[in-house]
Amino acid sequence: MDDKRERILTAARKRFRHFGVKKTTMQEIAGDAGVAVGTLYLYFKDKDDLLVACTEEYIARHRREAETILASDAPAGEKLRQYALDRFRAAEATRTGYRQAAELTREVLRVRPERRLDEGRMMTEYFVRFLRLGIEAGELYTDDPERDARVLLFSLAFFFPGALQDLPYPPKEEDLLLVVDWFLDTWASRVA
Amino acid sequence: MDDKRERILTAARKRFRHFGVKKTTMQEIAGDAGVAVGTLYLYFKDKDDLLVACTEEYIARHRREAETILASDAPAGEKLRQYALDRFRAAEATRTGYRQAAELTREVLRVRPERRLDEGRMMTEYFVRFLRLGIEAGELYTDDPERDARVLLFSLAFFFPGALQDLPYPPKEEDLLLVVDWFLDTWASRVA
Repeated sequence: MDDKRERILTAARKRFRHFGVKKTTMQEIAGDAGVAVGTLYLYFKDKDDLLVACTEEYIARHRREAETILASDAPAGEKLRQYALDRFRAAEATRTGYRQAAELTREVLRVRPERRLDEGRMMTEYFVRFLRLGIEAGELYTDDPERDARVLLFSLAFFFPGALQDLPYPPKEEDLLLVVDWFLDTWASRVA
Repeated sequence: MDDKRERILTAARKRFRHFGVKKTTMQEIAGDAGVAVGTLYLYFKDKDDLLVACTEEYIARHRREAETILASDAPAGEKLRQYALDRFRAAEATRTGYRQAAELTREVLRVRPERRLDEGRMMTEYFVRFLRLGIEAGELYTDDPERDARVLLFSLAFFFPGALQDLPYPPKEEDLLLVVDWFLDTWASRVA
């Protein structure tokens, strides 16, 4: 991976999270990354372009984490459970971990309106893969993994509220696990 | 039921929905209801008191609709399905049907912060009753109706977002039914 590009992305991410997208200038990002402003513009044509690249890195990390779980030795049910937990913790960190989480989310949705749907599609895709692994191993059963993955996505959607919402009752990890474990028990009990 | 009280509540509800709570005066409500302002104050000591009474009427309607479904001839699964659909439509109407839905929801949460939790508890309670009916009729089965009702509540929570959230993708009735029908199929398939 290109080292300068990486340094720019890291600097941009920190600035965006801490001060917000609007208040961050390309000059500040170049300064933090230790590159000339002219160099920065060779890599990214403007702030929106940088923001899109940061978002893509976030999605790439989602994929890396999921593939790591897929490659592990755990039973399929355990994999699905760990994946749901990882996504929950990542979403919670995005929602509450940065000073400018709400502004950053708004800006990402402006440059990438389909972002939330994309994440939902990715999660459904991985749910299907975990389910198929479970079926192959004789550990879980459903006659329609795609439908069940969609049902699970809706059933967990409450636990992924996004940073724009004012939450009187933020979702809890233990409640997420109650739902995930219930689904896993249901699929396990269907194994003849 | 006291006719004057009813007229006052109807007038207040219309004003709150159309103009919002803050912009509505006790004088206007009295005028719409055709009672003297002094009479209005005999029934409700201030606007918040009126707002609480409107909220209680909303909850009473929820209960009436649920009891009507419970008293019907439909199989237990059908009852649960109809109940979930009724609640979804009521929530959607509250969210989108009134000009001042967001302000009204904020004001209700101010005078009754536990309101959303109360509704969740009521829904869980009715889910348990429908499940028990289904178990008695040999139509559905679970060894723990309370746990399953809680799981269903979380699984449907996404479909009841409240009026305060800016929703890029509002929940759809067909997706709600996908989830509800999946749960009903699961409980039906557990009948030995």
